[in-house]
Amino acid sequence: MLRPGSVIGILGGGQLGRMIALAAAELGLKAHVLCPDKDSPAFHVSAAHVCAAYDDFDALETFAAGVDVVTYEFENVPLATAEFLAARVPLRPGAKALAITQDRLAEKSFVRDLGIETAPFAPVDSLADLEAAVAQLGLPAVLKTRRFGYDGKGQVMIRPGEDLTAAWHALGRQSAILEGFVSFVREVSVVAARRGDGAFCAYDVTENVHREHILHTSTVPATLTAEAGRKARAIARDIGDALEYEGVFAVELFVVCQGSNERVIVNEIAPRVHNSGHWTQDGAVTSQFEQHVRAIAGWPLGEVSRLGRAQMTNLIGADVHDWHALLAEPGTHLHLYGKEEARAGRKMGHVVRVSRDPEACANIPDGEGC
Amino acid sequence: MLRPGSVIGILGGGQLGRMIALAAAELGLKAHVLCPDKDSPAFHVSAAHVCAAYDDFDALETFAAGVDVVTYEFENVPLATAEFLAARVPLRPGAKALAITQDRLAEKSFVRDLGIETAPFAPVDSLADLEAAVAQLGLPAVLKTRRFGYDGKGQVMIRPGEDLTAAWHALGRQSAILEGFVSFVREVSVVAARRGDGAFCAYDVTENVHREHILHTSTVPATLTAEAGRKARAIARDIGDALEYEGVFAVELFVVCQGSNERVIVNEIAPRVHNSGHWTQDGAVTSQFEQHVRAIAGWPLGEVSRLGRAQMTNLIGADVHDWHALLAEPGTHLHLYGKEEARAGRKMGHVVRVSRDPEACANIPDGEGC
Repeated sequence: MLRPGSVIGILGGGQLGRMIALAAAELGLKAHVLCPDKDSPAFHVSAAHVCAAYDDFDALETFAAGVDVVTYEFENVPLATAEFLAARVPLRPGAKALAITQDRLAEKSFVRDLGIETAPFAPVDSLADLEAAVAQLGLPAVLKTRRFGYDGKGQVMIRPGEDLTAAWHALGRQSAILEGFVSFVREVSVVAARRGDGAFCAYDVTENVHREHILHTSTVPATLTAEAGRKARAIARDIGDALEYEGVFAVELFVVCQGSNERVIVNEIAPRVHNSGHWTQDGAVTSQFEQHVRAIAGWPLGEVSRLGRAQMTNLIGADVHDWHALLAEPGTHLHLYGKEEARAGRKMGHVVRVSRDPEACANIPDGEGC
Repeated sequence: MLRPGSVIGILGGGQLGRMIALAAAELGLKAHVLCPDKDSPAFHVSAAHVCAAYDDFDALETFAAGVDVVTYEFENVPLATAEFLAARVPLRPGAKALAITQDRLAEKSFVRDLGIETAPFAPVDSLADLEAAVAQLGLPAVLKTRRFGYDGKGQVMIRPGEDLTAAWHALGRQSAILEGFVSFVREVSVVAARRGDGAFCAYDVTENVHREHILHTSTVPATLTAEAGRKARAIARDIGDALEYEGVFAVELFVVCQGSNERVIVNEIAPRVHNSGHWTQDGAVTSQFEQHVRAIAGWPLGEVSRLGRAQMTNLIGADVHDWHALLAEPGTHLHLYGKEEARAGRKMGHVVRVSRDPEACANIPDGEGC
C-alpha cells in the first residue's frame, strides 16, 4: 500500500495521463510522467517528467528508480517495456492485462474462453485466411489489425461483393482478425475498478455514441434493461478477476435486441481509464481518475454513486473553439487538455453536463456491483 | 480575457496556490508559481516554477515576462512586489485590495467607511495609545499587530485587570490595533467572486468553528436567519465593489444575537481563496478555485449552487495520519497537500463530507446573490 507522498509513474503524457496526475495530486501523491512527445499535456501538471522513447531502457531505469508504482494511459506500451519496469517496481495494471488487450485475437479468445459472448471472429494471417474467414462469418465484416488500432484506425469494413484482396492490402497485409458484423442497437460501456485483493466497483453503465469512429457522447444512465445492466457489470467483474486486474478498466459492449430482450456482447477491453468514464469527474462521487489512483495505490475504492443524469461530450478539433460559450452554460463543466493545436480529429477537451433533478438522484442504483 | 493555453502566475506555493494551479489545469491553463520555499506543494503541479524571494526583482522580471496574469495565495505580498508586477502584467486582485487588507487598521477603517459594522477598534502606536484605547473600548479586548497576523499569530487577548505594559511588549511594540470584544454566538464567512466588470457571485454562507485560532470545520448551510444571510452577502458585494475586486475573496463575520434578531459584524477580509471555501470542491457545482481562475481570466463565473449539506474539516498536524480511515469513509473526499512533515498546527489537508439527501438539495437558494 502506498503512503501519501509516494510517486506514481505514468507511461504516456496525453490527456488521460494528465487527468491521472491531477487526481494523484489531490490525494497528496506525486506524478512522474514518461512520454516521448515533448509537448505532452501531462508534463504541465507533474512533479517530474522525462521525455524519452518507451524503448529507451536507460531512461526507463532512471524512471523506475524514482517512482513507487508504474501505471499507463494507453494499452500499446511495448511488452518489453512493461516487463523491464515490472521487474523493478510494481506495474499496475500488470503485464498480463497488457499482453491480452494489445492483441485483438488474444483478447477476443480470452473473453470467449470466459464463456462471455463476443462478435464472431477468425484470425487472418494471409489472403487465404481472409477468404476462409469470410466464408465462415459472411459479409459485411470488419477486418482489423491485431495490434495498434484505436479510434477506427487499423480497420477496414468489407461489404458484400467487395474485393478481399483490396481489403487485405489496405490493411498492409498485417496479422489481422476478421470480425463478423453485429447488428447492435446501441453501444455501452462499463467502467470499473479492481484492486489486487479482488475488491471491485463498477460505475453505472454508460451509453456511447460515436462519430467517425471517435467517441462523441457518453450518457448515464444508459437506455438498458435492468437485466442487461446487471449482465454487463457481471461481465466486467469476470474479466477483471480473470486478468487479476489492478486499476480502472473499461469494457465496451454492443447491445443487441431479441424481441423485448436485450443481450450484451463484448466489443473491446481497455486496460486503463477510459473516455467513456469522463462523466464521473462531475457526475459521480469519485472520478474514474481518483478511483484508478486509489486502486493502484492499494487504497479503499471510492463511492461510485451518480450525482444525477450525466452526459459527457468530447470536444474534437475545432469543437474546442466553443470554449467560451461552454463556460457560460450553467451547470456545464469544461475540461481542456492544454493542447495547442486544434487539429481535425484531435481530442482537445470535453464537457460534462449534470442534471441534478431529484428524480435522477433517486434512480441511483443501490450500491450494486460495489 | 485570457485564452486557453494562457499562463497564470501565482505568488505563493502553499496549498492554496496548489489548488489554484490544479483548477487552472482543468481549464486548459498553465500555472507558473513563484515562492521562496523550495519544498512548495504548488511546484509539483505547475508547468513552471521559480524558487525566489518576493523581493528578488530580477526573478520577478523573468516571472512577469512568462505569464499572462498574476494572482496570489496570501495577502502579505509586499506592496513593492505587487506594484512591480502590476506595471508589467495584470495583477488580479489588484494592489488596492492588497494595500487595504494587509493592514488591519486600514481594513477596518475601509469597512466602517462603507457603513458596515465592525468590532469597535482604535489604533495603537504606543503604550499611551493602548491605555487610551482600553479606556475607550473597555476590556476584554484583543491587541493585534496591524500587519502579518494569521491563524491567531500576532495577537494577544487582554482581560480585565491584566497588565497593559506586558501586552504591549508581548506584541513587540509594533503598530497595532485594539479591537473591542464582540460577544458573538458564531462565526460565519461569505466566499464570493467578482469580475473586473462587476459580475458577482457568492456561495452560501458558511459556518466556521476554530480550534486554537485555526479553522477546524466549515459547514453549509450556516445556522443563520435568512435576513442575516442576505445581509452577509450584501456586505460581501459592497466590499467587492469598493475594492474593484477581481477574483475570489472571503469576508469573515461574527454573528451577534439581539433577542431573536441576528446581526452580522465584519471581522476580516481575505483577498484570496479561503480555507472556509474548501467545501466547494465537492459540495458546489463550481469550486472556489475554478471560480477564482474564471474571475481572474475574465471568464463567465460558474454556478455556485450547493450539491447538498457540506462540511469541511481541516487536517492539522497529526490529524493527517487518519488518511486511510478517511479514504474508506463513503462519500468523504480527501484532499492532501503533499507536505512531508506533519508538524503541530500545520495544515496538511482537509476532508469534505457531503450529504446529498434530497431535502438538503431542495434548500439550495435560488441563485440569490448571483
